[in-house]
Amino acid sequence: MKHFKLFSLILSIFIGIRGFSQDKNIPIENSQKDSLMIRKIYHEALENGKAYGDLRELCKNIGNRLSGSVGADMAIDWGYEKLQSYGFDKVYLQEVMVPHWERGTKEKGYFKSGKGKTQPVNILALGGSIGTDGILSGEVVMFKSLEEFKAASNEQVEGRIVFLAERMNQKNINTFRSYSESGKIRWEGPIIAGEKKAKGYIMRSLSLSENDFPNTGVMRYKEGVKKVPSAAISTNDATRIEKLINEGKIITFFYEMNCKTYPDKKSNNVIGEITGVKYPDNIITVGGHLDSWDVGEGAHDDGVGIVHSMDAVRILKKLNYQPQNTIRVVFFMNEENGNRGGKKYAKEAKLSGQNHIYAIESDAGGFTPRGFTIDGQNKQAQLLKSFAPLFEPYFIHYLEKGFGGVDINPLKNEFDNIALFGFAPDSQRYFDIHHNENDVFENINKRELHLGVGAIASLIYLLDSRY
Amino acid sequence: MKHFKLFSLILSIFIGIRGFSQDKNIPIENSQKDSLMIRKIYHEALENGKAYGDLRELCKNIGNRLSGSVGADMAIDWGYEKLQSYGFDKVYLQEVMVPHWERGTKEKGYFKSGKGKTQPVNILALGGSIGTDGILSGEVVMFKSLEEFKAASNEQVEGRIVFLAERMNQKNINTFRSYSESGKIRWEGPIIAGEKKAKGYIMRSLSLSENDFPNTGVMRYKEGVKKVPSAAISTNDATRIEKLINEGKIITFFYEMNCKTYPDKKSNNVIGEITGVKYPDNIITVGGHLDSWDVGEGAHDDGVGIVHSMDAVRILKKLNYQPQNTIRVVFFMNEENGNRGGKKYAKEAKLSGQNHIYAIESDAGGFTPRGFTIDGQNKQAQLLKSFAPLFEPYFIHYLEKGFGGVDINPLKNEFDNIALFGFAPDSQRYFDIHHNENDVFENINKRELHLGVGAIASLIYLLDSRY
Repeated sequence: MKHFKLFSLILSIFIGIRGFSQDKNIPIENSQKDSLMIRKIYHEALENGKAYGDLRELCKNIGNRLSGSVGADMAIDWGYEKLQSYGFDKVYLQEVMVPHWERGTKEKGYFKSGKGKTQPVNILALGGSIGTDGILSGEVVMFKSLEEFKAASNEQVEGRIVFLAERMNQKNINTFRSYSESGKIRWEGPIIAGEKKAKGYIMRSLSLSENDFPNTGVMRYKEGVKKVPSAAISTNDATRIEKLINEGKIITFFYEMNCKTYPDKKSNNVIGEITGVKYPDNIITVGGHLDSWDVGEGAHDDGVGIVHSMDAVRILKKLNYQPQNTIRVVFFMNEENGNRGGKKYAKEAKLSGQNHIYAIESDAGGFTPRGFTIDGQNKQAQLLKSFAPLFEPYFIHYLEKGFGGVDINPLKNEFDNIALFGFAPDSQRYFDIHHNENDVFENINKRELHLGVGAIASLIYLLDSRY
Repeated sequence: MKHFKLFSLILSIFIGIRGFSQDKNIPIENSQKDSLMIRKIYHEALENGKAYGDLRELCKNIGNRLSGSVGADMAIDWGYEKLQSYGFDKVYLQEVMVPHWERGTKEKGYFKSGKGKTQPVNILALGGSIGTDGILSGEVVMFKSLEEFKAASNEQVEGRIVFLAERMNQKNINTFRSYSESGKIRWEGPIIAGEKKAKGYIMRSLSLSENDFPNTGVMRYKEGVKKVPSAAISTNDATRIEKLINEGKIITFFYEMNCKTYPDKKSNNVIGEITGVKYPDNIITVGGHLDSWDVGEGAHDDGVGIVHSMDAVRILKKLNYQPQNTIRVVFFMNEENGNRGGKKYAKEAKLSGQNHIYAIESDAGGFTPRGFTIDGQNKQAQLLKSFAPLFEPYFIHYLEKGFGGVDINPLKNEFDNIALFGFAPDSQRYFDIHHNENDVFENINKRELHLGVGAIASLIYLLDSRY
């Protein structure tokens, strides 16, 4: 009896670790069927993938597409027509009100060290910032971290221009971890600057490389707190100014921005679906966001998510796969500065009475796939892990708990049993191009992009066929 | 008894699969010590790595460096001084005679469809080709694969210019597999063309992308067989000509090249070593090749291997790691067109009476590390597999049997028990830049490069400390 218990224990650990390929109810033939299907999916993606060509259209014919912009409207039309052209069963728009902020025509920055010459600085207003109302200038007070800034006295800050010099952490292997660690300087910094009565707020760009291209991104103000004009400067400029301050120099910063927030505007999520043959009211959502920041072309962020999702489902259709559940491709609007599209989608999903079982988001770039993260119950995480042997030939190894995605996240509040999946590509280059001028089609590699399509189509297939 | 046997079987499988982290003789504390050391290595690489700056010097101050060129001589001096500057115990040169081929000053290609206008073609002589002795022209005969070419009659080929239109296979996930499948069109094609009395030989570049930049690389002639001037054309040009031929057009091709082979020249491998404290006569070699093709800057191929190796050992030194065995960094000369450096090194290694236990080569590019391949005995492959849990936090998952590297390969013939390791980074972008104008420093990502340094330094540490 004692032996038997130990035996059972070891057996159960062994199965837990090793038996991924043999789910309890799945006979061996099915696993072979699955691996053949996945191979077909990948071959179609690598040989005939449409994602690369579609992304070129989105980037080059439309370009960037911030919520409320003409680019966003054009992208909605483009997305609607594309989904129709691929023969989705239903294609429709879902209305959503979005914020409307514009960068304006003036955006310049300079600094002066002591009584030296004025030197230009590469600057980008943070999304949502107020303008400077003419040229704003002041003495710079530098903080090395948000903690240091928080701990500063009001006297240190009041009437000055705060420079948040925090660097993203190079030591994390996953660069998104460094982004979430340092992201607070963009999300919270301007509010703290307002509370301490700063004149202005500038920050080192959230990038892991040294370059001249500032990275923008969303910021917020807080009701009742002074609104401070806020901008990112390039990492090269930040390093330069930091060095001078460390040498004891007095830095004066000058900037002018006429960015402005306008009233909310009507916009849309774009949706295309293939009706499930067995459970048409079970929905598997797969998507990315159609809006982008207003610099570069929104190629990796998140044109990639749009074409990944659309091409993945196109391939399943082309291979005559008949989904058991309804597969719905969603191009979400307004992820970047409000997530109104994601919130609206979740609300409507609940109202529809349909059962949302899974959602997959691609919003981490179009680089070589490494895996998927899952936000769900343990048994759902185990299901994802059980796909490991099927994914291994495609160099997909990372199948771990983690965040799903900003757009699909609100679905969690409406559906208790939904599992959210985040596509996780290689993250090393992402913050070199994130929210800056370099997020353009030329920085997309065709094979890397199409491997992502293969991975996502395979995940949809596995989730759908095993539900 | 029956239960006991089954129990043992399961236990042994279980240990085989799961027990990687607990090598028979390594207590748990050691595994913790190892993971701490590896973390330190990675932090140093990511925060203070020298590889990126060193590679910039090699690419921008010297540039490309084909065997026998001035660039190669300059690179030898640079490498020698660099190794000295990092305080290696011994730094020395190892003389090696190398082939000396030069591209020459003329290299142009054109084609004409029917009686149409002459159009330029992007062309690069294959390394080792003879020149055309003026303008060579002739009717093109196209083959879709080397097999089709081999099967052709002499009449089809004689007096014509052969165009080998074979495409690299997009379906393999590992692009090196596609390279080794299609590489024959470069290695064997010109010989077959000679045997069938072709006038000339042109081939579609060995690239997986569609672009205007032809990829060169080594070719050979065979004693007693006609020497045919041989070149690669860009994939875009190849696609264009292929299409016209498929439409039934008669294509005339014109090209002029004055490339030439000169007598062999004296050159050097560059060697730097840190003497082992316990087994100084046991050698662990780590290296890449210093020569490159004569287009671009030899950044990924194989400047990366040079700086990977040097920086990996620099970091071990900086962390005050005292190797048990002698660690030897080798910058091999002439991998690209002769492998004379690798052969010479192996021969000298044997003559020295020292015991070469391991060799590691980085010659697959500077992209994000995925793992290592091993060419060795089963128990050595198991040792590599046993490192999996230590490498997992660094997203290194691929630890499989495979090729070590061209430069270190000759060591196998001299040392029965040596294991060879090949650094295996992500391979998706490699053939976009391989042996062409785009293999330049700008296509290196600093973090990806330094993650490679971390991976290689960790492998050296693990192999050395466990021997």
